[in-house]
Amino acid sequence: MNKSIKVAVLGSTGYVGLDLIKILNQHPCVKINFLGCENYPNTEIKHIDNRIINQNLPKLKLNKEFNSSNSDVVFLALPHGISHKYVKKFYKKIRIIDLSADFRLDNLSTYITNYNNDHTCPSLLNKFIYGLPEFNKEKIKNNENISIPGCYPTSVLLALIPLIKENLLLENNIIIDSKSGYSGAGKKFNLKQIINDNNNNFYNYNTNQHRHICEIRQELNKCSVKKFNFSFNPHILPVFRGMMTTIYCDLESNINEAEIHNSLKNFANKNPFIHLYNHNQQADLFNVQNTNNCILKLFKSHSENKIIIVSIIDNLIKGAAGQAVQCFNISFNFEETLSLI
Amino acid sequence: MNKSIKVAVLGSTGYVGLDLIKILNQHPCVKINFLGCENYPNTEIKHIDNRIINQNLPKLKLNKEFNSSNSDVVFLALPHGISHKYVKKFYKKIRIIDLSADFRLDNLSTYITNYNNDHTCPSLLNKFIYGLPEFNKEKIKNNENISIPGCYPTSVLLALIPLIKENLLLENNIIIDSKSGYSGAGKKFNLKQIINDNNNNFYNYNTNQHRHICEIRQELNKCSVKKFNFSFNPHILPVFRGMMTTIYCDLESNINEAEIHNSLKNFANKNPFIHLYNHNQQADLFNVQNTNNCILKLFKSHSENKIIIVSIIDNLIKGAAGQAVQCFNISFNFEETLSLI
Amino acid sequence: MNKSIKVAVLGSTGYVGLDLIKILNQHPCVKINFLGCENYPNTEIKHIDNRIINQNLPKLKLNKEFNSSNSDVVFLALPHGISHKYVKKFYKKIRIIDLSADFRLDNLSTYITNYNNDHTCPSLLNKFIYGLPEFNKEKIKNNENISIPGCYPTSVLLALIPLIKENLLLENNIIIDSKSGYSGAGKKFNLKQIINDNNNNFYNYNTNQHRHICEIRQELNKCSVKKFNFSFNPHILPVFRGMMTTIYCDLESNINEAEIHNSLKNFANKNPFIHLYNHNQQADLFNVQNTNNCILKLFKSHSENKIIIVSIIDNLIKGAAGQAVQCFNISFNFEETLSLI
Amino acid sequence: MNKSIKVAVLGSTGYVGLDLIKILNQHPCVKINFLGCENYPNTEIKHIDNRIINQNLPKLKLNKEFNSSNSDVVFLALPHGISHKYVKKFYKKIRIIDLSADFRLDNLSTYITNYNNDHTCPSLLNKFIYGLPEFNKEKIKNNENISIPGCYPTSVLLALIPLIKENLLLENNIIIDSKSGYSGAGKKFNLKQIINDNNNNFYNYNTNQHRHICEIRQELNKCSVKKFNFSFNPHILPVFRGMMTTIYCDLESNINEAEIHNSLKNFANKNPFIHLYNHNQQADLFNVQNTNNCILKLFKSHSENKIIIVSIIDNLIKGAAGQAVQCFNISFNFEETLSLI
Repeated sequence: MNKSIKVAVLGSTGYVGLDLIKILNQHPCVKINFLGCENYPNTEIKHIDNRIINQNLPKLKLNKEFNSSNSDVVFLALPHGISHKYVKKFYKKIRIIDLSADFRLDNLSTYITNYNNDHTCPSLLNKFIYGLPEFNKEKIKNNENISIPGCYPTSVLLALIPLIKENLLLENNIIIDSKSGYSGAGKKFNLKQIINDNNNNFYNYNTNQHRHICEIRQELNKCSVKKFNFSFNPHILPVFRGMMTTIYCDLESNINEAEIHNSLKNFANKNPFIHLYNHNQQADLFNVQNTNNCILKLFKSHSENKIIIVSIIDNLIKGAAGQAVQCFNISFNFEETLSLI
Repeated sequence: MNKSIKVAVLGSTGYVGLDLIKILNQHPCVKINFLGCENYPNTEIKHIDNRIINQNLPKLKLNKEFNSSNSDVVFLALPHGISHKYVKKFYKKIRIIDLSADFRLDNLSTYITNYNNDHTCPSLLNKFIYGLPEFNKEKIKNNENISIPGCYPTSVLLALIPLIKENLLLENNIIIDSKSGYSGAGKKFNLKQIINDNNNNFYNYNTNQHRHICEIRQELNKCSVKKFNFSFNPHILPVFRGMMTTIYCDLESNINEAEIHNSLKNFANKNPFIHLYNHNQQADLFNVQNTNNCILKLFKSHSENKIIIVSIIDNLIKGAAGQAVQCFNISFNFEETLSLI
Repeated sequence: MNKSIKVAVLGSTGYVGLDLIKILNQHPCVKINFLGCENYPNTEIKHIDNRIINQNLPKLKLNKEFNSSNSDVVFLALPHGISHKYVKKFYKKIRIIDLSADFRLDNLSTYITNYNNDHTCPSLLNKFIYGLPEFNKEKIKNNENISIPGCYPTSVLLALIPLIKENLLLENNIIIDSKSGYSGAGKKFNLKQIINDNNNNFYNYNTNQHRHICEIRQELNKCSVKKFNFSFNPHILPVFRGMMTTIYCDLESNINEAEIHNSLKNFANKNPFIHLYNHNQQADLFNVQNTNNCILKLFKSHSENKIIIVSIIDNLIKGAAGQAVQCFNISFNFEETLSLI
Repeated sequence: MNKSIKVAVLGSTGYVGLDLIKILNQHPCVKINFLGCENYPNTEIKHIDNRIINQNLPKLKLNKEFNSSNSDVVFLALPHGISHKYVKKFYKKIRIIDLSADFRLDNLSTYITNYNNDHTCPSLLNKFIYGLPEFNKEKIKNNENISIPGCYPTSVLLALIPLIKENLLLENNIIIDSKSGYSGAGKKFNLKQIINDNNNNFYNYNTNQHRHICEIRQELNKCSVKKFNFSFNPHILPVFRGMMTTIYCDLESNINEAEIHNSLKNFANKNPFIHLYNHNQQADLFNVQNTNNCILKLFKSHSENKIIIVSIIDNLIKGAAGQAVQCFNISFNFEETLSLI
């Protein structure tokens, strides 16, 4: 079985693509045989990122040169609006793990509204499994097309879905205050927005208007007959990688902190990447950077029938590249944690 | 009137003391004639902070060497638990502007519970005016003893009190998510908590247990017959100075965003340091660092009867040293903005 | 005498212009009455830099709107190639302190070769005093046109000229290894050159090709019958402000470290901004940032007839804005240190 | 051959130990079977460093629990003064790759003078090969005990030895100006030395007194009948990893830049980690961070018979952990670049 799966990555030179290569490159069952990009054809990937051991890697080629018959699976680390064009071409010819937003939404008009984009293959929207393995493991095993969730949705859903499935939360008063490292904005991000001559910055953006809201709502509503309504307020931190999502919410009547704790404890016990911290454990970005872990921690609210949940991930790993490899592992019946722990 | 007020600063060498000296040193009516400290007697203050123009400043002495008969006013930039001992000694002998927590709370047992401390002069607790000038200007003018609010309370109260006074908010569902620069933790802060070899950190701490909660509650409840209840979740940013407080709250029935906007607009119009930003203006830490300004900005919530309010200050200036000078200006009948704009 | 000198600054919004305003704004004898810029007319300067107390400052106007008859002196914080056009217009109409490179060189062809530029008023090249006050104080007092040295030359010349004047150094084997904060590159500097996702950078540039070489050579050769020859290797540090210049050089026969030390000690004793550190004093960028000081420190070489001299300044202050104000003070017969210590 | 070499690391939790584990963990022929430390027994190494994929790694144990009969080779990532005690115990029982300074020097009294330390096994000083593989490859192949050079010496020797062997340089006028990332100071380094509230620092230290001087001199003198004499001036950069060494030196008579270039070009052509950059290639720390490469680049001096050589490495990789694995590869007859490119 060693190195037997031939893997291609399109969009190799973005932050997510690079993390993907680093993880896959250490994977005992993977042979990377194509690395695509837009701007650096014929370059060795180690010249894009020193941390990659290049020895058995192919040189970069143009994304469009990829021939799907040469690989077993392709990871698309491409921007939304680009990915669906490749999917249209490759569908059924190769297994696809798409890290863009192009196949996360079930509904075409929601996609078009949020991403200002046409979609070349809307009929394939429901052919992709939403790759949040903690909830969709069985479906991932039996599907050749996986769409990896957004980073913010990952941090939110891992905290809320276990509670929603057990009907522990009210639907109308959820506040989601998320703080993300700036790598989420990609390589084009202008550092002057967060570093000036003598200080660092911090700011919120797209409050209650962010594209990830429709994705979060879609997935929450799938788990319940309730219709969830929430505020979503994302921020940019002067940190490269890492994301903390703080959720303030109301409990169903007769539910208390202990039941929330038990639910998340059960969830963590079943999932190798989920860690429920207790009151004595410091939960910060250092704990998750460069890992595929999600740390959850509860804090008492000002009222007995409310709770505060903190969910921390590395936006590039559990929020993108690591989660994609986790889905890959599951879909190929490897151990879920292979190359990730 | 030039340089006619003789001013002393005790606790000169902490972050707040240094900002205080920098501001007072440019003040056209102030003559600094004593600088106290614990650890650097006989040192020139410019050797503690290069940014201070030293030319007319006295050398540092020990705090305990201060003779209150030589100055007109003393700023106490001391830790809580220390400040009240000096106040006991100086009361009625000199005007006092205290930047510690020792005279912010009206109630002795609240102080003792929150600050794990005895208080040597509890009878003076109600002799100090709470120095939030936007609301207490008249009292500040007629009182010789002023207690400067905490940094978190300043950011919260400037956003909430105008709305509470007009009864625009419900009392039971207020979420306060605050993010502060690490200078708030003082010079003893260990940088390894926020910087490691290859990344920066971010974390929450003392959630719903922070000492500033009782101060916020005290001041909110003074403005209304309602009893306000809220969650307070503070965080440390990898930023030296600056603080963003995000408040999620429910509106009174029949109140909408426009009325909130009008209330804060009126508040901003009357107060030179308060700025209500509109939807097109970027509100971030860069806007307030090194200023005495408070920027307020509204964001739509997920529900019509809720609102999101962002309040941004420099924790060392409007949250401490600048606010103290603002109070000083008012108490001496100078223009409020002198040396601050 | 209070606030009696009317001062204009052209090029107010660059790093040097802003430091100039901060210093002049605290100057007891200066009234700033014009602030020019290229890109932000009708803006308050505090919106460009929060650290500036704006109260008595005029709004920004376009540089070209400046009317020389309204001010007593104009500081030109303009790029080389621009400054000489304003000088041509203002010469003899107003005192000029030029911070560009346009009037530092005595020789037109050297200027044209190094700055790839025509010069609109070459006849004025020798009308400007080279504003290094430690050596040219008397000339500065009696001249209405002053050209402020470059930052690298300042750090080099303050270390070498005292020694060269006393004929303590050989001329042929001088190595100058300089490390500068990136503010020297101006506001256009791309931060990605020194900060990436997980590390900071450091690099040399223009080794033995930098424009400041001809300026250093010109000034060294003025002090001696020897013709000095040296290597100049400048670097960019991941630091905003501060510059360390390390000079490796050979001593004249029979000269030893003690005589070098004495020479620099005498120099420091006569000049308020020059500090010769002894072996026990840590000499680093923290010591000079935000000051007009130059710290000198000697280190033993591997050979008795060689020496290592370290010279540390803030490139924006002693290397530009502070030195300009020092020259201003001298030329107006104020105390040299006014507003600078 | 897969995973057939059993490897132990003592001192796993320092910066060098962690980099060593990261590299060895990806090595196709290595099975790490012991990880020793002083302070974290029974901990998983991934909790010390998130970047390590832990899956097949043993838990940390105390260094002293190591049983040499269970492994094929041990890497000692220990401080000087500690390492020799383990060597005394393990010598001849297991292959040893020592990353401390304890076996770099041939002469006991030089060791004692420079490291203020007794040595428990001075008779073994000449049993260790100096592990600079670019020059000692054959000896490394045939020796079971290797001592890895210091980081500064590595950067210096890779630039100078090729030239010295061909007698291209004079011996008396060499200046070595080195700038290192602060990881070289280990985990105990106090960040406040390089980061304060609003700026970064830079400073030189131990100029002409650094412990690496005797090591550099020893190795230079081995290559020539000349006795080399040089100044060594190391600095700390506000950078985590990376080191730039700039060497100013005099050429032998009749030698010019072209011959220097040819010599280094030949050297680079024979060694996979040595890269000679040409005048158009930017040589900075970004190029080498996280790699085992050494970048060399030449710059013209001010005189025809002098030259400037820049040598850039990652102080933790080519300066320590990577070089140790390179030696390991050679000593086991693996490809030199295995797990390193």
